[in-house]
Amino acid sequence: MTYYFEDFSAGRVFELGQCTVSEEEIVAFATRYDPQPFHADRVAAADSMFGGLIASGVHTMALYMRLFVDRVLGDSASLGSPGIDEMRWPTPVRPGDTLRARYTVASARKSRSRPE
Amino acid sequence: MTYYFEDFSAGRVFELGQCTVSEEEIVAFATRYDPQPFHADRVAAADSMFGGLIASGVHTMALYMRLFVDRVLGDSASLGSPGIDEMRWPTPVRPGDTLRARYTVASARKSRSRPE
Repeated sequence: MTYYFEDFSAGRVFELGQCTVSEEEIVAFATRYDPQPFHADRVAAADSMFGGLIASGVHTMALYMRLFVDRVLGDSASLGSPGIDEMRWPTPVRPGDTLRARYTVASARKSRSRPE
Repeated sequence: MTYYFEDFSAGRVFELGQCTVSEEEIVAFATRYDPQPFHADRVAAADSMFGGLIASGVHTMALYMRLFVDRVLGDSASLGSPGIDEMRWPTPVRPGDTLRARYTVASARKSRSRPE
């Protein structure tokens, strides 16, 4: 099925499933995009305040994005996103962690620039 | 030099330099993290409202993150980020585009949970 504007009613919840993130992927992403030692360097991470590798927050967001595309956006009449209003990283994501994602529609309005 | 809390005074501006993003990288990132056709599929993208490939918004953010780490965060006494309050994607990023980044300190406060 394809989701259209009308399908995104306020309060609707989409369960996005889950994914598991490996140490190899955490290090590969961080090496390219966020090479802070506690993301990209296993040995240095062990000596950091986190006590081991944790995923870049941008990586965590990217993992969510993939689940969102697979379950919702890839089957929608999406015209793109204007941005993000509030993103929080409450808990470190570590190698082998399984992340479960959920998308809840807070509100919906027609685009001012592309009302079609 | 290493940046400490005292270096992040409100209004201070850090120029983060620039980077150029290739079609190959746009497609690789999107294939893994944001496989919408206008990000991951050159042919489908040409038929989309964008008229060609554009980078995933998450990818654009990741490219900014790399510049930020290289110029500021990697040389700072950072304890991590609580999150992001407002992110906007005003203009599509296309293959070969060069992105220039700037970081401005809006305000600074001691962490409530880790005041050290």
